[in-house]
Amino acid sequence: VERIPILKLGEFLLVSIQVDMHDRLALSLQDDLTEKIVATGAKGVLIDISALDIVDSFIGRMLGSIAGMSRILDAETVVVGMQPPVAITLVELGLSLPGIRTALNVDKGMELLRRSLEEQRESLGVLHKPD
Amino acid sequence: VERIPILKLGEFLLVSIQVDMHDRLALSLQDDLTEKIVATGAKGVLIDISALDIVDSFIGRMLGSIAGMSRILDAETVVVGMQPPVAITLVELGLSLPGIRTALNVDKGMELLRRSLEEQRESLGVLHKPD
Repeated sequence: VERIPILKLGEFLLVSIQVDMHDRLALSLQDDLTEKIVATGAKGVLIDISALDIVDSFIGRMLGSIAGMSRILDAETVVVGMQPPVAITLVELGLSLPGIRTALNVDKGMELLRRSLEEQRESLGVLHKPD
Repeated sequence: VERIPILKLGEFLLVSIQVDMHDRLALSLQDDLTEKIVATGAKGVLIDISALDIVDSFIGRMLGSIAGMSRILDAETVVVGMQPPVAITLVELGLSLPGIRTALNVDKGMELLRRSLEEQRESLGVLHKPD
C-alpha cells in the first residue's frame, strides 16, 4: 500500500491504520490528511488503530503530530479502537500520548467530536450569531 | 496484517480494504463480518476499496460473496470508493460485479443504505406497526 485512504464521514474524516507505518508512509499520510482537512473543511479526524498490535514511539509521535497539525487547521483528532494490550504497553513504555484524545470505538469517537463541536459553536454563538 | 478491522458506524459496518487479499484473509474477513453483523444487528455494510489499484476476479468474487452473506443476514452491502481505472479494468475484463451495489464514496454509500432501509421499513409499516 502506498497510501492510506482517508474517508469522509459527514463533517469528519476517518483514517484506519492497518499497515506497518514507515517514515515515507507517515509523511504522505500527514500531507494527504492536512490537504483533505483544508479541501473538505472537516472539523474532526478519527484515527482507528484497532488493527495495530503495537504502538511504538514512532507511531505515538506520528499520532501526536497529526493531532497538532489538525488542531492548527481547526479540526480535532480522536484516536479510536486501541487494543487493551496496546494501552498496557504504552504505559509500560512511559508513552502517555500527550495531546491525543481517545475513544473506545468510532461511534464513541464521533459522539465526542460532535459534542465538543457543539460546545465550540455555542460558545461562539455568545459572541456572534452564525449566518 | 492478519485481520481487516470492521468499524461500526451507527447502524452500519465499514470495512476499508487496504492490503492485498489472499485466500485466508478473505475467509477471515467473511467470518468476522458475518459474526459482527449478527452481534451488532447491523443493517448495512460499506466496503471501501479506494486503496485498491486493481480489482481482479478473486476480489470480485469475494465482494460478491460478502454481499450474498450479508443479504441473508438482512444487511445490504455497498462498495464505495472505486478508483476510475478500476472501473475501466473491470469492464474490460468482463467483470460486472453482479449483485453488488456501488456508490462514489462513504457518505453517498451511507445515504443509499439509509434510503433503502427507510423504504424497507415503510413497506413493512403497511403490514404491521413497529413497537
